[in-house]
Amino acid sequence: MVKAIEWKNNAVIILDQTKLPFEIRYTECTDYLMVAECIKKLCIRGAPAIGIASAMGIAIGAQDIKAKSFDDFMNKTQNIMETMLSTRPTAVNILWAVERIKRLLYKHKEESIRKLKKLLIDEARKILEEDIEINKAIGRWGAEFIKDGDTILTHCNAGSLATGGYGTATAPMILAKEQGKNIQVIADETRPVLQGARLTAWELMQADIPITLITDNAAGALMRKGLIDLAIVGTDRTTRKGDVANKIGTYTVAVLCKENKIPFYVAAPLSSIDFNIDSGELIPIEERPSEEVTTIWGHRIAPEGVNVINLAFDVTPFEYVTAFFTEKGAFLSRDIKKLAIKTIDPNSLRLKPI
Amino acid sequence: MVKAIEWKNNAVIILDQTKLPFEIRYTECTDYLMVAECIKKLCIRGAPAIGIASAMGIAIGAQDIKAKSFDDFMNKTQNIMETMLSTRPTAVNILWAVERIKRLLYKHKEESIRKLKKLLIDEARKILEEDIEINKAIGRWGAEFIKDGDTILTHCNAGSLATGGYGTATAPMILAKEQGKNIQVIADETRPVLQGARLTAWELMQADIPITLITDNAAGALMRKGLIDLAIVGTDRTTRKGDVANKIGTYTVAVLCKENKIPFYVAAPLSSIDFNIDSGELIPIEERPSEEVTTIWGHRIAPEGVNVINLAFDVTPFEYVTAFFTEKGAFLSRDIKKLAIKTIDPNSLRLKPI
Repeated sequence: MVKAIEWKNNAVIILDQTKLPFEIRYTECTDYLMVAECIKKLCIRGAPAIGIASAMGIAIGAQDIKAKSFDDFMNKTQNIMETMLSTRPTAVNILWAVERIKRLLYKHKEESIRKLKKLLIDEARKILEEDIEINKAIGRWGAEFIKDGDTILTHCNAGSLATGGYGTATAPMILAKEQGKNIQVIADETRPVLQGARLTAWELMQADIPITLITDNAAGALMRKGLIDLAIVGTDRTTRKGDVANKIGTYTVAVLCKENKIPFYVAAPLSSIDFNIDSGELIPIEERPSEEVTTIWGHRIAPEGVNVINLAFDVTPFEYVTAFFTEKGAFLSRDIKKLAIKTIDPNSLRLKPI
Repeated sequence: MVKAIEWKNNAVIILDQTKLPFEIRYTECTDYLMVAECIKKLCIRGAPAIGIASAMGIAIGAQDIKAKSFDDFMNKTQNIMETMLSTRPTAVNILWAVERIKRLLYKHKEESIRKLKKLLIDEARKILEEDIEINKAIGRWGAEFIKDGDTILTHCNAGSLATGGYGTATAPMILAKEQGKNIQVIADETRPVLQGARLTAWELMQADIPITLITDNAAGALMRKGLIDLAIVGTDRTTRKGDVANKIGTYTVAVLCKENKIPFYVAAPLSSIDFNIDSGELIPIEERPSEEVTTIWGHRIAPEGVNVINLAFDVTPFEYVTAFFTEKGAFLSRDIKKLAIKTIDPNSLRLKPI
């Protein structure tokens, strides 16, 4: 399994996904600004992966901090956190990582600065390791909803490259295959940045899962022909109500699934759920440069001077989601908010496949 | 207005649309095989335009025929017609042009071969001229359904490049603008061949109609945000029931319109209506080379060896169509078949805007 990100010899090693699948090139980030730049430029992308990258960025940035008190250290760490938060607005995982690190630091505020710096590195590496375990769990729960012979549509890349490993939307596919189920996957190419064509197709070919690439335009026709049994996508941020922000075009997939009576599943680690907001309309939607639309791989495909709208994400309202696959089980939209309540046993809410 | 095709000095002059908008290059076809090749390679595309090109191809091919009798001439012309029919299977306009030319020849079977050859050239040029008038009429009827301030979504290119001039889907936009209505257009880029980005955006910029380019993935999100008032698309073949074959992704636009309660109009000259078949499932759907998906502008965007499905068209069932804009007026799906009945006055069926 290719690693999107790693902590090695006091550097953050990031696989440059903008070059995939044609070039395997790693960037060795030795300061936090390099990490932030990698996130902004999509060298690393995918909600869980940029959560991990942010934690590692904060950890590496903190090593250079000179501070005499906890408050001083905290202030300077805060600046690094702000830089990370400013890279990409839609995914909640950066915020999630920042909050987790803050809690850790306050918990250990009596420790020495040196110790705090070490704790940050340990925590960042722990976030990466946990992510892999979380994805395996998502995979186990999600695989229950995949039948032998199923063809699964996915949009964008919520694969191992978007995470510490296994992926979120791809984990159920990998687990289903491990369980001996005969499955195949159809990947939307996912314009503008073509993560489906470049990343998902490549990953699943490497994982030996039969994969067919289509343009985003073709998903509807294949559904109508009865060639797709279910769809699984990832999420950059899901609200407590179950509104799902994910790569632009996800809403279209959800509408097509509804129209064709095909289950639409969202693989959502709890770190991607924003329990603080209710409606998807409150999620900030990143607009990216128009060049992502007017050029492909550096080559112009549209007339000079054309006006462009390039929303990176869209919001799929909760009512389109058949179920969420999380590390705690599969759940209906209406039960998502209850997962924040510590006294509730997820077992009592868990959805069983029909 | 740029001309996609012209008859000049006993040659068919075709604007090579595969190079647009970056290069204005014309191909001078001096035999019918060159015309057929232009159609196959998408140098000329769009249902009405390839109908015109086929008629011109037959006319130019017939000039070289050596025949001693009408039957001999007809047989040899038939071979040329078969070549034209084999270029692209989905659009009905080639068949329509072939049938029209056959009727013409049989009507004049007593004429000399020399006269028949001349008649073929005249007929091909007449088809081109009529097409422009037809599109203007489509534009006038369609413009009635466009209100001042409307934002119109279109998919692929059913503009002047796809026709003799004015376009089918673009004619109502041009007429609405001429009527002083303040409109703007959003163009889906239309993968895989990007006719929206390359052709529609370019044409409408030249026509001074405000145009915004989006990826195919973004149409749904914009509809949900209330930024699109209506959609107008063309058609390569519409059945008597009103099922619409058009560029892949059209079905998706129609489903999104339905879900967001946005009118979905199809601009359909009568030449694109196949009164002989009822269900869209009977329309042959062209599958095109996988390289259209895995490469863009000659540059690879997907891993070597990936499996691809590349359907060029999809079928939108009649029930998604709010109205058809034809040269005889705007009609509901259920009335399309009645347009074939010569004794029916289109006036009695015509749909009025609300």
